[in-house]
Amino acid sequence: MIPRYSRPEMVSIWAPETRFQIWFEIEAHALDAMAELGIVPKDAAAKVWDAHRNAPPFDIARIDAIEAETKHDVIAFLTHVSERTGPEARFLHQGMTSSDVLDTCLAVQLARAADILIADIDALLAVLKRRAFEHKLTPTIGRSHGIHAEPVTFGLKLAEAYAEFSRNRARLLSARADVATCAISGAVGTFANIDPRVEAYVAEKMGLTPEPVSTQVIPRDRHAMFFATLGVIASSIERLAIEVRHLQRTEVLEAEEYFSPGQKGSSAMPHKRNPVLTENLTGLARMVRGYVTPALENVALWHERDISHSSVERYIGPDATVTLDFALARLTGVVDKLLVYPERMMKNINRMGGLIHSQRVLLALTQAGASREDAYKLVQRNAMKVWESDGALSLEELLKADPDVTHYLSADEIADRFDLGYHLKHVDTIFGRVFGATS
Amino acid sequence: MIPRYSRPEMVSIWAPETRFQIWFEIEAHALDAMAELGIVPKDAAAKVWDAHRNAPPFDIARIDAIEAETKHDVIAFLTHVSERTGPEARFLHQGMTSSDVLDTCLAVQLARAADILIADIDALLAVLKRRAFEHKLTPTIGRSHGIHAEPVTFGLKLAEAYAEFSRNRARLLSARADVATCAISGAVGTFANIDPRVEAYVAEKMGLTPEPVSTQVIPRDRHAMFFATLGVIASSIERLAIEVRHLQRTEVLEAEEYFSPGQKGSSAMPHKRNPVLTENLTGLARMVRGYVTPALENVALWHERDISHSSVERYIGPDATVTLDFALARLTGVVDKLLVYPERMMKNINRMGGLIHSQRVLLALTQAGASREDAYKLVQRNAMKVWESDGALSLEELLKADPDVTHYLSADEIADRFDLGYHLKHVDTIFGRVFGATS
Amino acid sequence: MIPRYSRPEMVSIWAPETRFQIWFEIEAHALDAMAELGIVPKDAAAKVWDAHRNAPPFDIARIDAIEAETKHDVIAFLTHVSERTGPEARFLHQGMTSSDVLDTCLAVQLARAADILIADIDALLAVLKRRAFEHKLTPTIGRSHGIHAEPVTFGLKLAEAYAEFSRNRARLLSARADVATCAISGAVGTFANIDPRVEAYVAEKMGLTPEPVSTQVIPRDRHAMFFATLGVIASSIERLAIEVRHLQRTEVLEAEEYFSPGQKGSSAMPHKRNPVLTENLTGLARMVRGYVTPALENVALWHERDISHSSVERYIGPDATVTLDFALARLTGVVDKLLVYPERMMKNINRMGGLIHSQRVLLALTQAGASREDAYKLVQRNAMKVWESDGALSLEELLKADPDVTHYLSADEIADRFDLGYHLKHVDTIFGRVFGATS
Amino acid sequence: MIPRYSRPEMVSIWAPETRFQIWFEIEAHALDAMAELGIVPKDAAAKVWDAHRNAPPFDIARIDAIEAETKHDVIAFLTHVSERTGPEARFLHQGMTSSDVLDTCLAVQLARAADILIADIDALLAVLKRRAFEHKLTPTIGRSHGIHAEPVTFGLKLAEAYAEFSRNRARLLSARADVATCAISGAVGTFANIDPRVEAYVAEKMGLTPEPVSTQVIPRDRHAMFFATLGVIASSIERLAIEVRHLQRTEVLEAEEYFSPGQKGSSAMPHKRNPVLTENLTGLARMVRGYVTPALENVALWHERDISHSSVERYIGPDATVTLDFALARLTGVVDKLLVYPERMMKNINRMGGLIHSQRVLLALTQAGASREDAYKLVQRNAMKVWESDGALSLEELLKADPDVTHYLSADEIADRFDLGYHLKHVDTIFGRVFGATS
Repeated sequence: MIPRYSRPEMVSIWAPETRFQIWFEIEAHALDAMAELGIVPKDAAAKVWDAHRNAPPFDIARIDAIEAETKHDVIAFLTHVSERTGPEARFLHQGMTSSDVLDTCLAVQLARAADILIADIDALLAVLKRRAFEHKLTPTIGRSHGIHAEPVTFGLKLAEAYAEFSRNRARLLSARADVATCAISGAVGTFANIDPRVEAYVAEKMGLTPEPVSTQVIPRDRHAMFFATLGVIASSIERLAIEVRHLQRTEVLEAEEYFSPGQKGSSAMPHKRNPVLTENLTGLARMVRGYVTPALENVALWHERDISHSSVERYIGPDATVTLDFALARLTGVVDKLLVYPERMMKNINRMGGLIHSQRVLLALTQAGASREDAYKLVQRNAMKVWESDGALSLEELLKADPDVTHYLSADEIADRFDLGYHLKHVDTIFGRVFGATS
Repeated sequence: MIPRYSRPEMVSIWAPETRFQIWFEIEAHALDAMAELGIVPKDAAAKVWDAHRNAPPFDIARIDAIEAETKHDVIAFLTHVSERTGPEARFLHQGMTSSDVLDTCLAVQLARAADILIADIDALLAVLKRRAFEHKLTPTIGRSHGIHAEPVTFGLKLAEAYAEFSRNRARLLSARADVATCAISGAVGTFANIDPRVEAYVAEKMGLTPEPVSTQVIPRDRHAMFFATLGVIASSIERLAIEVRHLQRTEVLEAEEYFSPGQKGSSAMPHKRNPVLTENLTGLARMVRGYVTPALENVALWHERDISHSSVERYIGPDATVTLDFALARLTGVVDKLLVYPERMMKNINRMGGLIHSQRVLLALTQAGASREDAYKLVQRNAMKVWESDGALSLEELLKADPDVTHYLSADEIADRFDLGYHLKHVDTIFGRVFGATS
Repeated sequence: MIPRYSRPEMVSIWAPETRFQIWFEIEAHALDAMAELGIVPKDAAAKVWDAHRNAPPFDIARIDAIEAETKHDVIAFLTHVSERTGPEARFLHQGMTSSDVLDTCLAVQLARAADILIADIDALLAVLKRRAFEHKLTPTIGRSHGIHAEPVTFGLKLAEAYAEFSRNRARLLSARADVATCAISGAVGTFANIDPRVEAYVAEKMGLTPEPVSTQVIPRDRHAMFFATLGVIASSIERLAIEVRHLQRTEVLEAEEYFSPGQKGSSAMPHKRNPVLTENLTGLARMVRGYVTPALENVALWHERDISHSSVERYIGPDATVTLDFALARLTGVVDKLLVYPERMMKNINRMGGLIHSQRVLLALTQAGASREDAYKLVQRNAMKVWESDGALSLEELLKADPDVTHYLSADEIADRFDLGYHLKHVDTIFGRVFGATS
Repeated sequence: MIPRYSRPEMVSIWAPETRFQIWFEIEAHALDAMAELGIVPKDAAAKVWDAHRNAPPFDIARIDAIEAETKHDVIAFLTHVSERTGPEARFLHQGMTSSDVLDTCLAVQLARAADILIADIDALLAVLKRRAFEHKLTPTIGRSHGIHAEPVTFGLKLAEAYAEFSRNRARLLSARADVATCAISGAVGTFANIDPRVEAYVAEKMGLTPEPVSTQVIPRDRHAMFFATLGVIASSIERLAIEVRHLQRTEVLEAEEYFSPGQKGSSAMPHKRNPVLTENLTGLARMVRGYVTPALENVALWHERDISHSSVERYIGPDATVTLDFALARLTGVVDKLLVYPERMMKNINRMGGLIHSQRVLLALTQAGASREDAYKLVQRNAMKVWESDGALSLEELLKADPDVTHYLSADEIADRFDLGYHLKHVDTIFGRVFGATS
């Protein structure tokens, strides 16, 4: 975790205090279940909960000190719990294995992290939708290969992003369900020393589903799928970030990241407004993607478990979720405040002197009776003049002045082929598909 | 694609013949829709279908020759179609862009590939289930960190794999839905020159859903999710492969890949039966995982598309699906015929002289009134003797002969703690969860 | 390997014919060494060589047929050799293990692949140098964050690429040395049944160095380093490819991939010249990078070897080298024929109305006695007018007309700050560093 | 950085205090050079150094506060320097760009990190060498595919690791040279406002070489190569870690990670000594490998630079070096104290009843005149008995009792083929190659 790329709510999920609180809840709920089943004294569980509520917060330093001695994190925690909550603590953890606590805790943490990320996406979707409708009919040139193709609208670009992040939201819900499982099944998953009903009880209390079959651990294909999904979302972030970076290029300048009124670009150069937020997002996407492969390599644990996955998860659990949370929020801010320049968009549309409409004229000539070869020659010879003028000449005017062209098409018919509206007639259809509404 | 790691059905999806057939169907269905909409003559579509049915197969060499000239694959194809099906072919492709054909075709190919992979997983699940029930109560030692822990059954190991591949099946269904979309939306996705109803019609005919909003292409987050899912499945394959490799180690030898009766291990050494199939699967998993990152990097195309994704997909489309198909089938074969040695499993369980039961004795002593410290010492001093004998001594016998132990526990009570059945009492519960049935 | 991204010379390295020829040479040179050492009859080796020279080419189908039966590639090969070269073939392979042949062959193949790649880089360096000198003093705007910064020259951009590929050449030489080793050390690397002098002899004959210590195989950290190096080179290719793609954007258009005179961009649109070659290179770079992680995962083989690396290498050996060879050659072609538009570069330099020089004016004002605050205000108020005019106004003219500015600086002194040459005065120095010469 | 996987010396390289100290040195040395060149007053540089020496440490909180306002890290730093060192600070940074400071600082940090890593490898090499010689002739079974093959020595295994890490040392030296460059070349690398001699001077003072040609930044192929090299080293760590994990398996138990005398494995189970350190190293290797791809993706910055690399480097600069430093030190500790069990190794060698020698007997029979077919049958029929007895019978004894065998070989001749020494005769040769000495 890099402080400048971290937000407190997500960071707090990974704080020792949170972890110990979750550990306690898992153990205490399990105790409740054991009391209900008559395995431990009825009042032991209640006493532990009471003592916990009246005790001071967990003493992290104290737990660390015990761990330094015992070299075992869960034992250190239980020892400290015993110090805090009295003799009934001895009933805690009976028949359980450390991984029951650790893995169920990780499930709670990842589920909470997913909830934040889902809320992040919801916030992003809201601003994408607002700005998409704002620019639903703002014409801008569509580009393939970085080269002008045909007109689209700026709202369509945002609608595409909206659709993409809607998919990512659904994927994240699936990924959340994948990791939100509870295992309280003992040393090798056989429930040898613990009743399966304890697991069911704890699962319900912690908002998880019971793991159908665990080894010593919850299987890691679940976590692999989770982190792979984060990698896909990061790649979608990169896509939109790169779109903004392109639009902000000096020569294009159709949109810009927000600059506050008093803000200086760079000393004396007013043009020096750099898309640093979206460049930063590009880098953050690389990191979140970089965590996918370690998560995939974690799946093939040996037999009923080895502990190679643990160090990986100590890194990527926080790093991937904190970074992605930050990135989603930053992207939302960028879209929310993005400076959009419709006039410049129109200027760029027109900068080729109308060449982007040449295909429609070609078609019209053919339909008017010209052979395809002739039509092509007629368009081409005028188009080349426009091209060589670097957009100073107008294709429409040249065509209107070319008698071989006007032989087939009237001036009005020619003008009609240069109508932007032609390209935008289905924008409503598409908005209806994406947003379920066209306004 | 490496021939030795390829199976014909999956390979054929990626053959030029298949691709051209799908291209033709997309174009011809689109023509049907256009005819229905009155955009082209009513009978043009029927004539094209008829001519196609009566024509010889596509001439791949001819198409390649035209492409070498035109440097454009879809134009080359359409030219050849025109040669095969006559003048009505001129109505094909009107208002469409090459990517409409290419991306919709890829969607069909990936959906078909997914169908094969789902069938592969079904076959794997079937053998996993059969063998899991066969060995539902075959005791074997559970291992954490590669070290003996407590007993499980071999059936439980296979039930875990069954549950894991059931999850993978569900993920693959999601991934299939993600990529199975159709875009017939023109040069930049605005339907400027094509009616959206054509897209809807073609989608239905090809078994796809219409892409809500496309640029020139179908967005690549869909494909990224698809290939990431294949990477997760490959990792699950690796997990089971590594389990087999461990079990076949000379010193463990609890299971072996099948060797046909007459097959020679290695010249004169009958012990030299190598787990080459599962080692191979380990390598294949690395490859399928290796394709995930290029697919993620493909998401951030520039503006309405660039063509950087295309070369990547020419590699990983076939390579990832063909390799995974082969790997799933190979794994199914390995599980199906796996030689399982229950006697050796029991021998290994017992090789520590009963040390794996020491924890239960410790608990029994405590429950019988010994302090935890005393109980630990009593167990430990006997356990160490067994340990030093490398399993030649029996912990059960030593405990029965230790008067400080028998002070608390009778011989029968001691023997009771060495009962394997204790560990297996919930196997039915777990099988019920995984398979929905216990027999 | 994808045929369209493959060149025959590199492909031929990985052909079965080549592999069998190398296998034969390794075995036959080993036989020579054994004959010299008196282990086999003096004339056995000579007879094998003679018979080989007089025999027809290897019959691949025959070898495959034997392998289908024996399930062992090296045994199948030796059986066929025996058929081709007569009874003396029985002396071949004595005391050797299959990996001795396989790994030494892979070393030869990778070394030859490296030689081709080095030649590829040399060809690229040559065109980079030529074009760098051609445009040594062609001014073009330097961009940071995609935004105009200060002038550079187009030659400098190419000099940077030259320096980068010079480093890649050195890295590739290192990587070649890393993999070019020979192991003829028997079943587990102990030379139990073969004299180490055989290894030394074969190494020399095959142009390799003896592996100091092998297990059954040559250690895979060597191959990991090799493929990681290819990944770095691919990333450098991507960098230059993206530079070209940016320069060819419609709004920038400072350079273009070559279009032959008669070539059509897209039907009627003469502006539609897409940078498809460099987009393609971007995708190919993703693939070569994707092969790095599988190569890294191959390092940790179990004990004296497992065979998980083998399938990985069957893919990435050919795929990584063939793809990189193709990509380097394609990039060389792109640079060689790149259409460069110095006038457009100058137009872009000037499109901000001289704002790129504002910093120098600011400095001059300060040096002439203005306080930093005043100087900033003076520049800023004129610069903003230029900015708002979208480059229609000239900063130089505005400054010359601003009495508060001319209070400090004469018209000549102002003009002096708009001198492009100022920025280019050290180009020679840099060229001297990169090329060892300035012309 | 995860505290438990971090060591202070490496961590300190990445501390803000260190960074600011390096920034100051770069700026102050540059000032010296400018003073020498007469660009700034002769005594300005000396005054800045003096003031720095007498000033309190950098006030990180103060710098952070200024950055929060200016949103620019280098400006915030320079402002604070000005506060600390007085008016001469205004001469600092003239003609330089922020990246000059940032990138040169990163070069210093990576070079220092490399120095620590090289020292780590040296420490590892020393213990590998000591323990290799200690067990130079300790026989142990060589395994291919996890299956017994032929004998090697435990010293040979360590010699292999020694050779591998020697290669890694050389690679790290190359990687260090790759990143240890200095760029003080101004906004776009043209030295427009700074004399190249300043760069040369600073480079020398900071122990770097001048970057031949930079853009605004030092090219990132250098850093990519650096992090790729760390990924290779991590993979070598994983290889040795997995070897230890295998050797410590319950059924193999030829070596164990050190357990202090009083240390408890797991409660009452003395056999429960888990290879947790090497499992941990396996996970750490995954992380260091995971940082390679982001570093490769950083290479293709846009034009003269974008800032997408910066966030990536904020993560992987510290994370990769700190993790690898920790991992190397941990591995050194594991090897240093590894418990090696030669008796168990011998027991395992013999557990197949001598089958591992069957190949040599086969050869001896052939040489004594038996046909290959007969020899195979004779060995096979005895070997199968041994195999079926699970090693209880002795192949040597069975052969001596088989008259068809003794027809060709005397009892002594048979015994001779079961000589372990035969396999170890070239250990000295190999040690000589690896260590340059055999004792």
